[in-house]
Amino acid sequence: MSAPIVHGGGVTAAAAAFGGRPEDWLDLSTGINPCPAALPEIPTRAWHRLPDSHLVDEARRTARDYYGSGEILPLPVPGTQSVIQLLPRLLTMGEGAKVAIVAPTYGEYARAFISAGFAVNTVNHVAAIGNEHRLAVVVNPNNPDGLAWPVETLIGLHDRMKAVNGLLVVDEAFGDADPALSLAGHAQRLSKLVIFRSFGKFFGLAGLRLGFAIAPDDILKRFEEWLGPWAVSGPALSIAGSLLRSDVSAIRRLINERRAGLHAVLTGLGLQITGGTALFTLVDDARAGDIYTHLCRHHILVRKFDYAPTWLRFGLTPDPAADRWLGEVLQRFER
Amino acid sequence: MSAPIVHGGGVTAAAAAFGGRPEDWLDLSTGINPCPAALPEIPTRAWHRLPDSHLVDEARRTARDYYGSGEILPLPVPGTQSVIQLLPRLLTMGEGAKVAIVAPTYGEYARAFISAGFAVNTVNHVAAIGNEHRLAVVVNPNNPDGLAWPVETLIGLHDRMKAVNGLLVVDEAFGDADPALSLAGHAQRLSKLVIFRSFGKFFGLAGLRLGFAIAPDDILKRFEEWLGPWAVSGPALSIAGSLLRSDVSAIRRLINERRAGLHAVLTGLGLQITGGTALFTLVDDARAGDIYTHLCRHHILVRKFDYAPTWLRFGLTPDPAADRWLGEVLQRFER
Repeated sequence: MSAPIVHGGGVTAAAAAFGGRPEDWLDLSTGINPCPAALPEIPTRAWHRLPDSHLVDEARRTARDYYGSGEILPLPVPGTQSVIQLLPRLLTMGEGAKVAIVAPTYGEYARAFISAGFAVNTVNHVAAIGNEHRLAVVVNPNNPDGLAWPVETLIGLHDRMKAVNGLLVVDEAFGDADPALSLAGHAQRLSKLVIFRSFGKFFGLAGLRLGFAIAPDDILKRFEEWLGPWAVSGPALSIAGSLLRSDVSAIRRLINERRAGLHAVLTGLGLQITGGTALFTLVDDARAGDIYTHLCRHHILVRKFDYAPTWLRFGLTPDPAADRWLGEVLQRFER
Repeated sequence: MSAPIVHGGGVTAAAAAFGGRPEDWLDLSTGINPCPAALPEIPTRAWHRLPDSHLVDEARRTARDYYGSGEILPLPVPGTQSVIQLLPRLLTMGEGAKVAIVAPTYGEYARAFISAGFAVNTVNHVAAIGNEHRLAVVVNPNNPDGLAWPVETLIGLHDRMKAVNGLLVVDEAFGDADPALSLAGHAQRLSKLVIFRSFGKFFGLAGLRLGFAIAPDDILKRFEEWLGPWAVSGPALSIAGSLLRSDVSAIRRLINERRAGLHAVLTGLGLQITGGTALFTLVDDARAGDIYTHLCRHHILVRKFDYAPTWLRFGLTPDPAADRWLGEVLQRFER
């Protein structure tokens, strides 16, 4: 077993180390929309009964329309993490069955493949993915730097992977804010492509545990078999059925507002923004480690990175008051 | 891939074949308490945030007290099914690595092991489990016949499995109504025992997808690693934290009332009850196939069994009105 990865969201541990009640901390350590969408009504039967096939089928049709995946009915999964865990099973081990991951990125991909005994090459450009790789992982836009690869580049990579009977996995967990980046509209004609979409990040409902996989039918059937029946909760399917059909422009507008607020605070204090997506912002600063600790002392948690000690990732603040709090605390560091 | 198993709960398919709206059917095809426990308040953060470790830890402590598992903190899992899927990974394949399942029982155990390439022996008595088996599965009380093995018998089986470095899996999905049958209180000193508990059946909240695994620490750690982080939803952990601490005597009383109502209907019509648990009743009747179809024509779904064509399993009715409906429909078959 490999060591677990420290993720954002560990506010309990931070509060244990720096004091305060976890619920009083300002948690900016995740990439989750801090202004959750209003919960639609959840029918009693969604709680009570095993999620029947009609609930799953309805969520799949709704997700197809939302993601624009053509003939492909996206498979609901209990959080994208659940299918990351299953990815190694799509590969048969053997000589040359190497995996390429465009990095740095979300650490659970490397962990899953290494745990399963695969050789993992981390590369910093899709062009470095070669014939020896049987599976390539690209997070697009990437976490934590926000790097986005053009659709054409990824289609080219797909075709190269296909030529060696390999697979391309594109994680679009942060794709909702900018649908033009998504490969979902091309998935139908890309037979070696697996796309993962997150439901909870954009809608601010990460506690639900819901994601979708978009892939050729044979791969979705294998995920379905490996997850087993009733993998996704009734409330999650019911909520997705409502929210994916709703007008998301208000959510997008609020996210953009929050993002502008956060950027104003960070740039106003002279911090250098080097990347990010709609849901988080990456800062590069030589004093990152000290800023992190200073923020913790004031019960604000951001994300730091062992592999890049000058980086800090700031999630969105929930409201202007939180912007002011963050700004004041950061200003005191400056003095 | 093996063919999927037809389970109870397929009211959508039944309505497609026999007419009516699925929500208007009386679904007696599952073993889920038809009178769901009142939902406790779910804090917004349970929906919004990734399920933080303190939520998981609290659910584990509460589950330990509820199940009486001593030092073992039960692991929350997204439905027992999710860990049934993982059971084959506890075994290394090799000569003699056979699995024994006391049968007939819940079909997903055999499916999971056969899919993974293991030889499965179905046996009708725990005494038939021999030295050649590396893993034994006993559902206790059993689904669908309600057969219950005494605690001492199962401890004896555990000790035999342990002697060959094997594992005993006891599925106590229907164990809440009769805690005296549970091995949970002995788990701490049984180093080769894995217990699965279902949350949704007894509390009537199967849509939540929540179960618990009680096992030695090394096995729980492996399940945890295989499921990955945040496997269980925030609302499920929050609800379990409340309901497992609540007084369940009212739930037990209501289940017993509903059971008495169902039994009165069935025996009043001369049907022979041959088994069951608090949450379902098994009937043996030569006309079972015709009764099943007759009930479907009146939009009542029960469970039939390909392997036992004279059996019908009736789940509890939600209220006395449903008892009367069922009674009237069954009476018309009699004529």
